[in-house]
Amino acid sequence: MVSLKRNAFIISDRTGITAEALGHSLLSQFPDVEFNTEVLPFVDSREQAQKAVELVNAAVGESGEKPIVFATLVDNEIRKVIAECNCEFFDLFDTFVNPLEEVLQTQSSHKIGLSHRMVNAKGYVTRIGAMNFALETDDGVATTSYNRAQIIIVGVSRSGKTPTCLYLALQYGVYAANYPLTDSELEKNRLPDVLEEHKDKLFGLTIDPFRLQQVRQERYNRDSYASSRQCQYEIAQAEAIYRKAKIKYLNSTQMSVEELGAKIMQIGGLRRQF
Amino acid sequence: MVSLKRNAFIISDRTGITAEALGHSLLSQFPDVEFNTEVLPFVDSREQAQKAVELVNAAVGESGEKPIVFATLVDNEIRKVIAECNCEFFDLFDTFVNPLEEVLQTQSSHKIGLSHRMVNAKGYVTRIGAMNFALETDDGVATTSYNRAQIIIVGVSRSGKTPTCLYLALQYGVYAANYPLTDSELEKNRLPDVLEEHKDKLFGLTIDPFRLQQVRQERYNRDSYASSRQCQYEIAQAEAIYRKAKIKYLNSTQMSVEELGAKIMQIGGLRRQF
Repeated sequence: MVSLKRNAFIISDRTGITAEALGHSLLSQFPDVEFNTEVLPFVDSREQAQKAVELVNAAVGESGEKPIVFATLVDNEIRKVIAECNCEFFDLFDTFVNPLEEVLQTQSSHKIGLSHRMVNAKGYVTRIGAMNFALETDDGVATTSYNRAQIIIVGVSRSGKTPTCLYLALQYGVYAANYPLTDSELEKNRLPDVLEEHKDKLFGLTIDPFRLQQVRQERYNRDSYASSRQCQYEIAQAEAIYRKAKIKYLNSTQMSVEELGAKIMQIGGLRRQF
Repeated sequence: MVSLKRNAFIISDRTGITAEALGHSLLSQFPDVEFNTEVLPFVDSREQAQKAVELVNAAVGESGEKPIVFATLVDNEIRKVIAECNCEFFDLFDTFVNPLEEVLQTQSSHKIGLSHRMVNAKGYVTRIGAMNFALETDDGVATTSYNRAQIIIVGVSRSGKTPTCLYLALQYGVYAANYPLTDSELEKNRLPDVLEEHKDKLFGLTIDPFRLQQVRQERYNRDSYASSRQCQYEIAQAEAIYRKAKIKYLNSTQMSVEELGAKIMQIGGLRRQF
């Protein structure tokens, strides 16, 4: 039963993605309240801050409830402008800076965007390289490049291989290829030959057959491909192959791309590449 | 000058991605300290918490400096186990829950994973659909699908179109196509015909010609493609076309994929689709 409404703002001097994720996480702990949330990214000048203040002040509720503001603002002056508007102010960043200064016994630099710039310099080439690798080796092509792969995702058609590989590339800079287990491979009831020599890099995906059927029907509702019998057969065969070849695997049915990616990193013993 | 070393842990009951981003952002404010950071995701049981405690306790520095721990742990019991280990504990999540309860005058549910499960249910189909759309319309193919696009990224080869589209799909669930401005199109000095009717969806990318040359040389060092003269020519022509056709555009040279994505969302007036 949703009984309350509340306006909320995420205000950041950078992309707002971290603040949005944490703010969303916090608000989701209050399922009785219906939040109307707006993200204001790149608030990195007094002028931008003033614009944000106007938006926040205009969003005071009918009964006078102040909007909730989650902020990650590094610059003291900009933060002060926002904090003084008519809102309930939660500072997701600065709350921790003073205690950290005390623990580390050193001053923080209070500079915007240090974080992203560092990631930029170190990570840009790695991430784009990883993404190109995922695209070039998508769906079982360019298997001769598998020596450059850090992980090779295997699974039946529409089990989530491509999104997983692209996510691993973007988020972690990991070189991830993927190889589809097709009908003819599944019939043989063993690993495709081309994968044998890369066995230590393989990671299997499986999915609930009913969910697989739904996904396939949404895209190509052709003959047998999306039939209940075919989906059940493929999943049973794929899982049997994983177990026989002792390949680690995960069921993607209940997982977001983020969860799947983080689990694969953990189980596969992989590390962020930037 | 890096004068100090410190161990740090990011401990989360979910993927750890939000905690990692915020923790990294905070630590980057202390450029004089060299941090050795480890991420421990999916710490969602007493047993996992105990394992994490052992790792943290084993990481006390030679001169007795306690590791820094950034945590996002929803469960009170698990959080207590971690908070009591030999560390400097920063609670990125719970710090805000009590004040939020007071502001909202309601109890939080203190349940793990509410956030992700909601995103799952609402977003899974949207995000995967958007990603498939980006892949199907990559590099100027399937232009007949442009009526389904929310944005069409244009730019010369290797200006960052594909990563941008895939990121917009994954992060925001936005349907983003991309169309390459090739030599023959650039020579005509006007928008390709196929783009004319979608003019309101177009968004241009540009890049520093020197950077473009580097990126091209890393991949295919063939003849003219990666020459300084060719890169300068293509960028000048592309920017002239953007200005003439009044297409908004951004220079991707100094930006991370996240920044570029967030800027395009903002400038293009697009909203998260889940």
